[in-house]
Amino acid sequence: MEKGELCYTGKAKAMYATNDPDVLWVEYLDQATALNGKRKVAIAQKGLLNNRISSLIFQDLAAHGIPNHFIAQTSDYVQLVRRVTMLPLEVVVRNAASGSFERKFGVAHLTRLTPPVLEFFYKSDQLDDPAINDSQIHALKLASPATLTEVRRQALRVNERLSQIFAAMGIQLVDFKLEFGLTAAGEVLLADEISPDSCRLVDQATHRSLDKDVFRHDLGELTPVYQEVLSRLATIEGSSAHVSR
Amino acid sequence: MEKGELCYTGKAKAMYATNDPDVLWVEYLDQATALNGKRKVAIAQKGLLNNRISSLIFQDLAAHGIPNHFIAQTSDYVQLVRRVTMLPLEVVVRNAASGSFERKFGVAHLTRLTPPVLEFFYKSDQLDDPAINDSQIHALKLASPATLTEVRRQALRVNERLSQIFAAMGIQLVDFKLEFGLTAAGEVLLADEISPDSCRLVDQATHRSLDKDVFRHDLGELTPVYQEVLSRLATIEGSSAHVSR
Ligand SMILES: Nc1ncnc2c1ncn2[C@@H]1O[C@H](COP(=O)(O)OP(=O)(O)O)[C@@H](O)[C@H]1O
Ligand SMILES: Nc1ncnc2c1ncn2[C@@H]1O[C@H](COP(=O)(O)OP(=O)(O)O)[C@@H](O)[C@H]1O
Ligand SMILES: [Mg+2]
Ligand SMILES: [Mg+2]
Repeated sequence: MEKGELCYTGKAKAMYATNDPDVLWVEYLDQATALNGKRKVAIAQKGLLNNRISSLIFQDLAAHGIPNHFIAQTSDYVQLVRRVTMLPLEVVVRNAASGSFERKFGVAHLTRLTPPVLEFFYKSDQLDDPAINDSQIHALKLASPATLTEVRRQALRVNERLSQIFAAMGIQLVDFKLEFGLTAAGEVLLADEISPDSCRLVDQATHRSLDKDVFRHDLGELTPVYQEVLSRLATIEGSSAHVSR
Repeated sequence: MEKGELCYTGKAKAMYATNDPDVLWVEYLDQATALNGKRKVAIAQKGLLNNRISSLIFQDLAAHGIPNHFIAQTSDYVQLVRRVTMLPLEVVVRNAASGSFERKFGVAHLTRLTPPVLEFFYKSDQLDDPAINDSQIHALKLASPATLTEVRRQALRVNERLSQIFAAMGIQLVDFKLEFGLTAAGEVLLADEISPDSCRLVDQATHRSLDKDVFRHDLGELTPVYQEVLSRLATIEGSSAHVSR
C-alpha cells in the first residue's frame, strides 16, 4: 500500500489517500486538543498509544461480529482503514452520568443510566457541535431515519462489547463517542477511532480518570495514563502493546 | 364552581383548586416574562387577551377531534380546565427555522422545515429548560416511550389544525410550544395554553411578528398586537372577541 496525498488533517489524525481509492492511510498525531480545538498541545507518544489502542479495539469488535472500517495497523503511528462517507454526527453512548449530561440535567456524578443514554451531536466546529435530535437530523437531511435506526443498533452493540472489554481491564466505561460512515453501497459502517480520547474511563479500584479528562482538567501527565490503558488492553487481548509487523 | 385555594403561580397564570378535585380555576395574569422569568413586566390586558385566544383555540381543537384540558371560559381572566399531572416537558413543533433552531444549526431565518421538527425541552427553571431527547427522557424517567409516542402524535395533529387556523387569519405559524399532562387513567391530554406567548407568528402580508417576540426584542407595544391576533381569530371562529357568559 502506497501513501498518497493528504486529504484532511483533523484534531487527532491526518488522513492520506492511498493507491487504493477505497483505503485511507491514517496517521495518529502526538497532539491533544480540548474545547473543540481551541486548546492544542503536543504530547509525546499519544498518537502511537491511541493508534495501538484503537487498532486492538476495532479488531476485537470485528471478531465479535461488529464490522468496522479497520483494515490493519502498519506501523507505530499508522493504520489503514476503509474509506467511507462520514455522517456529520458524533454518537455518544452513556452508561453513567458525567460531563455535559451531569451538568445539563443536574444529575449526581456517575448515576447509572439504564437503559444506556444515546445522544447525537452535529459535528461542526463552527457551530460548536450542538446536540441534535432525530427530527432535526431529518429536517437538516444529515441522515435518513433508516440510517439512524441502524446507527443506534450498532452503537448499542458496541457498548455491550466495549463495556465487557473495559470491565475485564478493571475499568468502568462511563461514556464514549463513536462516528459512523456510509459505504458506497449505502451501508452504515463504524469508523474513526475508539481510544481514551473518545471514551470516559474510570479505574474501578482507585476511581482515577484513565482518559482525556486528565488533559481537560489538568490532572497530570497524559502519556502514562494512556500507556496504562494500553498495557491492560494488550493483556486481555493476548496481544503485544507494540505493533507486530 | 367555587374558587378554592391557590395551587401554583406560574409566569403567566395562577392555578386555583375548585370544589371539584378534577377541575382547576386558571387566572391569566397581566404579566410578561422573558429569559425564563429573569425579566418580568406588567402588561395591561395581556391576561384577558391570552385567556380569550387560548379558549377559542382549545375549543376549535376539541371540535376538530383533538381533546384537551379546556372546559369553559367563565370570565375575562378565568377559564376552567381539567386537572392533570403535567409532564415536565415543553414540546416544540417547528414549521420554519427561527429562534434557537436558527442559531444552533446556522440555518437561514424561516427556512421551511419538512417534515416539521419536533423538540422536547425539560421544563426546569433551575436548569434553564435544557433540550432533551427520548433516550434522556427515559433515563430520567420523565415519561415512558409509549407516552412520548402519543405526545408526538398529538403534537403533529395540533400542528396541522393550528396551521390551518392561522393561515385563515393571514398568519404563518412558524413554531409553537405545547405542554401535556396525564389523566388519572394515564391518558395523554393536551393542557396549558396556546396563545401568542407560546407561538411564533408572522403576518403573511407585512412579515411583522404577532407574538411575544415583540416583547422579547422590544419591538413595541404588546397589547395591540395580541388584540390584532384575537380580532382575526374571533372573526374566523365566528365568535366574539369578548367572553360570552
Ligand atoms: N473511515 C473513514 N473514512 C473517511 N473519513 C474518516 C474515516 N474515519 C474517520 N474519518 C474522519 O477523519 C477525520 C480526522 O479525524 P480527527 O483527527 O479525529 O478529526 P476531527 O478533528 O474532525 O475530530 C475526521 O473528520 C473523521 O470523521
Ligand atoms: N390542566 C392542567 N393541570 C395541571 N397543571 C396545569 C394544567 N395546565 C397547565 N398547568 C400548569 O400550570 C402552571 C402555570 O402556568 P404558567 O403560568 O404558564 O407557568 P410556568 O411559569 O411554569 O410556565 C404550569 O406549570 C403548567 O404546566
Ligand atoms: Mg476526532
Ligand atoms: Mg407557561
